Amino acid sequence: MSSPNPRKIVFIVLLSFFAFLLGVITGYFSRPVHKDSSQKLLEKLNRDGDWHLFEQFKEHVDTGYIDKVVRDLTRRPGLAGTPQQKKNAEYIFDLWQQEGLKAEIVQYNVLLSYPKGNHTNKVSLYDASGRELFTSKPQEKVLVDEEAPEEVVQPFNAYSPSGLVKGDLVYVNYGRAEDFKRLKEAGINVSGKIALARYGKIFRGNKVKFAEENGAKGVILYSDPADYCSPGDERYFPGGMWLPGSGVQRGNVVVVKGDQSTQGYPSTNYSYRPSEEEMSKQFPSIPCHPIGYDDAYFLLSSLVSGEVWQDWQGSLNFTYHLTGLLDNRTVQMDIQNENVYRPIYNVIAKISGTIEADRAVIIGCHRDAWVYGAVDPISGTAILMETARIFAKIYRSGWRPRRSIVLCSWDAEEYGLLGSYEWVEDNMKWLQNEAVTYVNIDTGIAGNYTFSSRTVPLLHDAVYKATMELPSPYDSSITLYQDWRSKSESRNELLPHPKIQPIGAGSDHTPFIALVGIPSTYSKYIGYIVDGKVIPINDYPLYHTRYEQYELLKMIDPGYTLAKIVTLFNCELIRQLVDARILPLNVRTYAGVIALNSRRLEKLRTAFTENNVEYDEFLASTERLKTAARIFHQKIVHLDQNNPLQVRMINDKLQSVERAFIVPEGLPLRPMYRHLLQSPSGLNYYGGTGFPGLEDLLELPDSDPEKWPQIRKHITILTHSIYSLATFLERD
Amino acid sequence: MSSPNPRKIVFIVLLSFFAFLLGVITGYFSRPVHKDSSQKLLEKLNRDGDWHLFEQFKEHVDTGYIDKVVRDLTRRPGLAGTPQQKKNAEYIFDLWQQEGLKAEIVQYNVLLSYPKGNHTNKVSLYDASGRELFTSKPQEKVLVDEEAPEEVVQPFNAYSPSGLVKGDLVYVNYGRAEDFKRLKEAGINVSGKIALARYGKIFRGNKVKFAEENGAKGVILYSDPADYCSPGDERYFPGGMWLPGSGVQRGNVVVVKGDQSTQGYPSTNYSYRPSEEEMSKQFPSIPCHPIGYDDAYFLLSSLVSGEVWQDWQGSLNFTYHLTGLLDNRTVQMDIQNENVYRPIYNVIAKISGTIEADRAVIIGCHRDAWVYGAVDPISGTAILMETARIFAKIYRSGWRPRRSIVLCSWDAEEYGLLGSYEWVEDNMKWLQNEAVTYVNIDTGIAGNYTFSSRTVPLLHDAVYKATMELPSPYDSSITLYQDWRSKSESRNELLPHPKIQPIGAGSDHTPFIALVGIPSTYSKYIGYIVDGKVIPINDYPLYHTRYEQYELLKMIDPGYTLAKIVTLFNCELIRQLVDARILPLNVRTYAGVIALNSRRLEKLRTAFTENNVEYDEFLASTERLKTAARIFHQKIVHLDQNNPLQVRMINDKLQSVERAFIVPEGLPLRPMYRHLLQSPSGLNYYGGTGFPGLEDLLELPDSDPEKWPQIRKHITILTHSIYSLATFLERD
Repeated sequence: MSSPNPRKIVFIVLLSFFAFLLGVITGYFSRPVHKDSSQKLLEKLNRDGDWHLFEQFKEHVDTGYIDKVVRDLTRRPGLAGTPQQKKNAEYIFDLWQQEGLKAEIVQYNVLLSYPKGNHTNKVSLYDASGRELFTSKPQEKVLVDEEAPEEVVQPFNAYSPSGLVKGDLVYVNYGRAEDFKRLKEAGINVSGKIALARYGKIFRGNKVKFAEENGAKGVILYSDPADYCSPGDERYFPGGMWLPGSGVQRGNVVVVKGDQSTQGYPSTNYSYRPSEEEMSKQFPSIPCHPIGYDDAYFLLSSLVSGEVWQDWQGSLNFTYHLTGLLDNRTVQMDIQNENVYRPIYNVIAKISGTIEADRAVIIGCHRDAWVYGAVDPISGTAILMETARIFAKIYRSGWRPRRSIVLCSWDAEEYGLLGSYEWVEDNMKWLQNEAVTYVNIDTGIAGNYTFSSRTVPLLHDAVYKATMELPSPYDSSITLYQDWRSKSESRNELLPHPKIQPIGAGSDHTPFIALVGIPSTYSKYIGYIVDGKVIPINDYPLYHTRYEQYELLKMIDPGYTLAKIVTLFNCELIRQLVDARILPLNVRTYAGVIALNSRRLEKLRTAFTENNVEYDEFLASTERLKTAARIFHQKIVHLDQNNPLQVRMINDKLQSVERAFIVPEGLPLRPMYRHLLQSPSGLNYYGGTGFPGLEDLLELPDSDPEKWPQIRKHITILTHSIYSLATFLERD
Repeated sequence: MSSPNPRKIVFIVLLSFFAFLLGVITGYFSRPVHKDSSQKLLEKLNRDGDWHLFEQFKEHVDTGYIDKVVRDLTRRPGLAGTPQQKKNAEYIFDLWQQEGLKAEIVQYNVLLSYPKGNHTNKVSLYDASGRELFTSKPQEKVLVDEEAPEEVVQPFNAYSPSGLVKGDLVYVNYGRAEDFKRLKEAGINVSGKIALARYGKIFRGNKVKFAEENGAKGVILYSDPADYCSPGDERYFPGGMWLPGSGVQRGNVVVVKGDQSTQGYPSTNYSYRPSEEEMSKQFPSIPCHPIGYDDAYFLLSSLVSGEVWQDWQGSLNFTYHLTGLLDNRTVQMDIQNENVYRPIYNVIAKISGTIEADRAVIIGCHRDAWVYGAVDPISGTAILMETARIFAKIYRSGWRPRRSIVLCSWDAEEYGLLGSYEWVEDNMKWLQNEAVTYVNIDTGIAGNYTFSSRTVPLLHDAVYKATMELPSPYDSSITLYQDWRSKSESRNELLPHPKIQPIGAGSDHTPFIALVGIPSTYSKYIGYIVDGKVIPINDYPLYHTRYEQYELLKMIDPGYTLAKIVTLFNCELIRQLVDARILPLNVRTYAGVIALNSRRLEKLRTAFTENNVEYDEFLASTERLKTAARIFHQKIVHLDQNNPLQVRMINDKLQSVERAFIVPEGLPLRPMYRHLLQSPSGLNYYGGTGFPGLEDLLELPDSDPEKWPQIRKHITILTHSIYSLATFLERD
């Protein structure tokens, strides 16, 4: 062996060292460090919504599909309980199945109302000798070609009882509580007479109820040109969008919603039904019938006693009078309607959530119409269908929602929200636990002036946010939100958002919000622009007439520009609700609205004090709720969003906020409505106020010994509910 | 340079190779692989309950503490609304604070009832000339030294109205519906007479109600030795546990629970209260008063008309007669009670859950007593206190529960569950969402023969499981479960478990289960063993008398052996409910019980068929529920328990099962009870049956035209609820 060479030793040491180093590096990086399953699972569970989805909505939205649905569904009348309506349900079902959605048709058997057999309902005018001077026309004129004119139901008011009544006439303006009050003050007796009321301002069922309470023996409803035409503009349908003299608004006249034969439970095949006699209490006791203004002309112009007040004057070309038929003429109503049990069909489809399948965002629109219903509800049904198609498409391309989406096509809404009520009653148990929100569509495009929304306060922010993502259909340089705001009165100066109306009870959201406490929203386009001028009209003039034909919708929204915007709005709103890690429900807004409304009662302070109503405690509860909501919001801000249970716990609270105002006993005078705040106003079922139960009680006469005790009790219940919600938010 | 030496080269290569290898190993293992935060978080969220905790319960349980609580709380009478009861609340509060529990005293202002001022309520017997032959004793004798005998309230029935009534007497046995029916059949008129009813079998409030319905003008309640003594055994208190002739059972006589002045909402300082007149409808309209058997002797022995049926004969030494006072004697009741508003005090403590703080297991026991209440409720309060102390102790040593525990000491239970009702009404909103179960304690040690339990079907398994963990107090070689089973009738042959009673409405679980649908359970020791012999008695003889003193409890459970077992039972039950990853609520058991009960109605099939009741559909719904429950159980078995949201989703469903039977309108004839299945029987508020609403309706006379329509409707509602629950379980 040769002696060790120092240079060789250095070489060997260095070589070994580098070999070792190389080994360390190799070893270190060869160790598998791919994400472990825990991390993957948490990443999946904690995924937040993806804003970019909105780009896909815009890409996919197809006005061709909207047009196809509108065309197909307006070809023949879609009256609930008719064979055509069953076909329409199958049509929706087929389209959804084709898109890959799991759909089902859900049938209920409900009590509907139709003109009886071959009888023609009519209103006639007789002279003193009993000679007929005039009889109302049995049907509206055909103005645009129809495929099956024989299927058009004659004008009638659903659930009006049959009756042959004869007598003097009294004009009651819009038939509101205030109108009857004014007549009373003027010494005009309604009792024993037939009331002639113009449509508009409030729900027709309320008009009939007030007339009945005032002793009328019949009600004739008519559409006055003042409310359904534009002065001097003679472009009546089909030349334009104004109501022709032959057009008649149909509609039901019941104030209690849902199937009258199964109040409180669903109309299944095994369900108990009360006797006819028992049920008759729920219907008006006096006959009621609608006519057009061509016919109304003969009646109104025969009145000669008592010139009307200025704001009671309509647009027919004579001075209106309150009562007193010329030359002892008499008016006769000859009405024969019948209530019959018929099957109705909801179509329901579901896209299951992948992370929280047990949380559901529900979207629905009714499908039935009085006649063709191009506007009400087909403009909305087309929006529902296009929304469904878009979600089905992005689902097929791989998108998976966090929560579930339930899509609903309701039947028999026109008869008093029957399809949705029976379904909600049928599904009450899981809805109570698992429904996050209900997004309603009905008439989607009533007009073309401005976006408008009826929404519970919890969802205000989500609605605003969605409109901020969208361009204005009229000016793509501004957002839909900006366009809407420029056309809306501000809610108040501190919150310069466009005004959102209370949710009311005018459509299928009612059972969701007023029975179960599911936060609800309903948006549409309203108002008319004619020749660049904004026309202030109540609803759209052809509402519930035979003339809601395909041609009408094409006039209002020629290229479906608005239908497209409302579709995108609904898509974006649903995206937020379905995918956002933290539900976009704002408790602070709700607390703010409640506090604001409670302070508006300040004008009643004297009455409250005199009657020992604990108003200050009530105010205190709303302030405590505001504080609790603020602190709760801070909790959300500082939440460990990496912990899926913490996120779920926050969402569970958010989801239950609206439920806190559901009381099992219902409102004191209207137990069928269980929501203390979001139930409709008792004076007008389309409307909605801050404290509907209180409003009902305040309307009681002061002579009623129960008035103030009941108000005291109701204020206790309101105060307690508000404190309860605060406690609920304050808890861990 | 010398030429390369091959051996050197091999050496260098090998050396480098080994250096590299060493490097690889070093590098590989030097890479940090500690558990990452995701894994830690998931491990924490997915932690299951720890069985070993039970060993700690056994180690910590301290009969000394139990004895201290019993001694301290039985020193002076603990009547609700008295200063002493406020002190007792503070006593509990202090003990809990000392243990480190976050406690609070929650006050309500409620309507209580007491004998009026200095008046002594009495029952007297007069001869035909009006001479007084006998008057009931104003107070029970003092038999064991008392610290403050002047604080003992005279025997009375709370909420009995005042009244001075005089007349003939009629013996009505236990005063059950069947007893009054038998009298009627025998032609004995109760109307206009004073009814004398013995205590036992059913709730005293129901006896008074039936007497009132049968036209009685007053009710005297007494304890017959047949029900409260043992034949031939003269060991009366304090020489033994039998009722002395002087002992009187106090108790309230209202059938609607909770504060009568605030039905449906809590009794806060701002709450509306109806007028006295309005409220009087809720109280009996006839006076009612309790006496002992020494006094009853004089009344009963004066009856001479109509020998009683064999099963109506009590143990006083003469033959009982139904009515007809000897020599035209008359009986007089002179009762003066008053209803007054008084504060009551619940004590509430909370241990917050660390994983799901928003899920709460509630345990409670009342604290108020008619006099000393050593058995009712102090035996239970001591168990509650020891349970709380054990949980506080293990909390201090580091244990953290998954869910929250809420501990409650209720006031004014004896007046109709006031403390618990007002609290539940006050906390309704979060309870509906967040309460998992309610574990009731009341009387913990009523006897010493056998363990017994009143529990909803969902919790049967959890109760059985807890008793399987415990040794029998009498034979440590067998479990408590085995001992219990050997002393119990089997429920049926297929399920040879010991019998569990329906939950009924006899204690503070009532608002939890019957208003909100929170699964509830209540267990205690019952029955007497005297000289090694089992004595079949209704409840314990000294119930609600002055003699429920410390000495009595020491006789029943000398070394607190049983109190210790019941404490450990409650600890183990709560441990399961609080810590188990999947809630121990068994839907299959519930579905099985419902199906079984529905098939028991088979005997009514003919009547159902004749009256068009959809009985087959009802049966079908129970079968579908059974299937749904079985499939749901499979879902639990195959659940990915590593996914905390999947676990929560299953638990959310389990927690809501009981709520599915809550209907807002309540039972058809008793709207104050909202649970279709777990509400008490209308015939006896201590009891409970399968379908209480149906049972009420079946009791209506066949002449009532509403009877069968109402039954048809109620079967619809039952069927629908069962289908709804099935749908809820079947959904994702």
